[in-house]
Amino acid sequence: MTIELINTGTELLLGDTINTNAAWIGQRMAALGLNVARQTIVPDGEVIKDAIAEGARRADVLLITGGLGPTNDDVSRESASAVLGLTMHLDESVVEHLLAYFAKRNKVMSDVNKRQAMVPEGAEVLDNPFGTAPGLYIPAACGKGRGLNCAMFLLPGPPRELKPMVEAHVEPRLKQLMPDLANRFTLYQKVTGMGESDIVVHIEKDLEAMAAGGLELGYCLGRGDVDVRLSGQRDVVEAGARLVRERIGDFIVSEDRRIIEEVVVDQLKAAGQTIATAESCTGGELASRLTNVSGASAVFGHGFVTYANEAKAKHLGVDMALIQAHGAVSEEVARAMAEGCLQASGADHALACTGIAGPTGGTEEKPVGTVFVALASRKDCTEVRKLFFPGARDRFKVLTTQAALEMLRRRLAGLAIPG
Amino acid sequence: MTIELINTGTELLLGDTINTNAAWIGQRMAALGLNVARQTIVPDGEVIKDAIAEGARRADVLLITGGLGPTNDDVSRESASAVLGLTMHLDESVVEHLLAYFAKRNKVMSDVNKRQAMVPEGAEVLDNPFGTAPGLYIPAACGKGRGLNCAMFLLPGPPRELKPMVEAHVEPRLKQLMPDLANRFTLYQKVTGMGESDIVVHIEKDLEAMAAGGLELGYCLGRGDVDVRLSGQRDVVEAGARLVRERIGDFIVSEDRRIIEEVVVDQLKAAGQTIATAESCTGGELASRLTNVSGASAVFGHGFVTYANEAKAKHLGVDMALIQAHGAVSEEVARAMAEGCLQASGADHALACTGIAGPTGGTEEKPVGTVFVALASRKDCTEVRKLFFPGARDRFKVLTTQAALEMLRRRLAGLAIPG
Repeated sequence: MTIELINTGTELLLGDTINTNAAWIGQRMAALGLNVARQTIVPDGEVIKDAIAEGARRADVLLITGGLGPTNDDVSRESASAVLGLTMHLDESVVEHLLAYFAKRNKVMSDVNKRQAMVPEGAEVLDNPFGTAPGLYIPAACGKGRGLNCAMFLLPGPPRELKPMVEAHVEPRLKQLMPDLANRFTLYQKVTGMGESDIVVHIEKDLEAMAAGGLELGYCLGRGDVDVRLSGQRDVVEAGARLVRERIGDFIVSEDRRIIEEVVVDQLKAAGQTIATAESCTGGELASRLTNVSGASAVFGHGFVTYANEAKAKHLGVDMALIQAHGAVSEEVARAMAEGCLQASGADHALACTGIAGPTGGTEEKPVGTVFVALASRKDCTEVRKLFFPGARDRFKVLTTQAALEMLRRRLAGLAIPG
Repeated sequence: MTIELINTGTELLLGDTINTNAAWIGQRMAALGLNVARQTIVPDGEVIKDAIAEGARRADVLLITGGLGPTNDDVSRESASAVLGLTMHLDESVVEHLLAYFAKRNKVMSDVNKRQAMVPEGAEVLDNPFGTAPGLYIPAACGKGRGLNCAMFLLPGPPRELKPMVEAHVEPRLKQLMPDLANRFTLYQKVTGMGESDIVVHIEKDLEAMAAGGLELGYCLGRGDVDVRLSGQRDVVEAGARLVRERIGDFIVSEDRRIIEEVVVDQLKAAGQTIATAESCTGGELASRLTNVSGASAVFGHGFVTYANEAKAKHLGVDMALIQAHGAVSEEVARAMAEGCLQASGADHALACTGIAGPTGGTEEKPVGTVFVALASRKDCTEVRKLFFPGARDRFKVLTTQAALEMLRRRLAGLAIPG
């Protein structure tokens, strides 16, 4: 079954509003086993009709958001009716809903709102408890007169109105339309420490051979990780997932979409252990990622952002002579920061980062992007990795904190930390 | 001139990635005086060709993002060439770029990457210093053989690669295509501490009266701020900007697109002063925002993430009895954190945050979203604001750190801090 999404709204094309509805709907459909085949975003006004006409020729279902307001440029109702050749009538139940909506807010309904009560013949009205615009479901059969066979859902644009309507009215109807959705399954294997092209080299050839058996393969780049996405019948997906595990299993962070900070917090909780952080070049980003996880307070209590050398000495007890001998960006200082952080915090593990985020501060010996990440643990020896992430400053922070979290993940999972 | 945008990427349709590129490009085009007439989002693979063929019949310029990677489902190059009837050749300069890119990272280029060096005849290669995929500009004349007259830009999908390429290569070429854009001027006034609807109340009526004189007004919602966008002839824009300054000048962070952390770092540099941070609920995000600014080390040396009460006591000297008497989330503890941070760091100013980020931990007296932000300064009295940001955890962190930075911005600018 082919689904297409049409978002209407000039504000989306101007970039004044980020189109979060599209991503949300995509996720909801993927969870149902349905892929959105195309999204089309058009401005308010006449062009909506073109987009609906084109989509109706390609798709089995059109989800159309926006254009249900009371003003003249809100023409989704009229456009869908015109494409399908349907007349519209004033629906008294919608008029009542509108009157009640305004009365509850001590407002008088304007005459322009009556447009929102116009319903194409054969359509079902979808309640909107959170706004004035009701949704509409136009079954595929309504388009027969025009040789079309495409069901349409007309939905409000504001997310607080759209989301409850999709959950309450759209998804149950889609399940009725596609009883065999139950057999489709999608698995995401989140991989870190390996780029997309390295992953491809390890797995693609053999997974592509499984495509004949119905396995669909995709890659989704995250912030410092890559999701390998496997879709199809459950047994086919599971066979694909086993192959990925055999090849690059140590690099798999999760198979349930948790990102690495969530995995690490869960690992620490399970082990009853704590982590502390000592950051120079990442400037607090590592602590911030850990504390993005709800419940992080169970495993994280102390973080230090020792941007200045004096701060490394004062709060972490790093010997100033060591900094002078090796430079603040060095294996020795990273080690001393992690071990000092362990002492200052009383935590079970401590991660430290020191590097050159750039764009300035690089030298020939230590160019911009050079970074040392150290992991000290109460019951294990300290390990230090030297890494190199040239490029933009924000990217440097993401990749450095990702590498730090990956060292901890591996230690907590009993996996080797790469040299 | 009609511009359409095609974003390719299965991850966009699955909702794995929010399509921020579309909004960003929309904003850039609006600033140039160009409106994006339609966005089409299609999955990786063959359907890209259909979308390009359709767009090329409607538009004067197609901006196509994504599908330039090394894998088999990255087919934007091939699709555009097929639509326009162009052959492709291996471009040695791109091969050299790829080899250098991998060599710099001590990696060996895989053979699959050679696909990224294929260039359609007549196309110009657009440098990509931030990734492997070069961009391509295919002038409109290349499509004559197929009866098409549509210029195409093929651009990488990752924002860190896309944005510099649009600024350096796409916009100058669009200006050449549209010489009458030269007189158009756009100014962004970045406003914080005031929501969009409050801004509208203060300025919209009078600015709309200036629309007859050619002033265009728009709002772009940022992370914790709003850009008021004024476009038109320079004198008209300047008159509009003066009006905004008169009405809400104290809330204007910048008129050159700098975000508040950049403004604050610049203010501190100019004053020869330093800032330190003491964070509970924001968990390092405040320090991270400050250190996102290149050159922040001149004004920021020490940050503390005192998530645990014991950490507040040990590193900031907050009296445990104070925490027990008032709770960790209290005006008193925020004040003590900021003042303790000032002592521990030796900085000129210290910001402290303590609150309930949620989703758990709220009480009737202090519901989720409650937060206290304190600013202590060596030469000024400590101020504490009580704020309330219910909602998602990441949003809470953004708004709390924004409010903290705004307190510092106002103090450094000699403006009153709201109660």
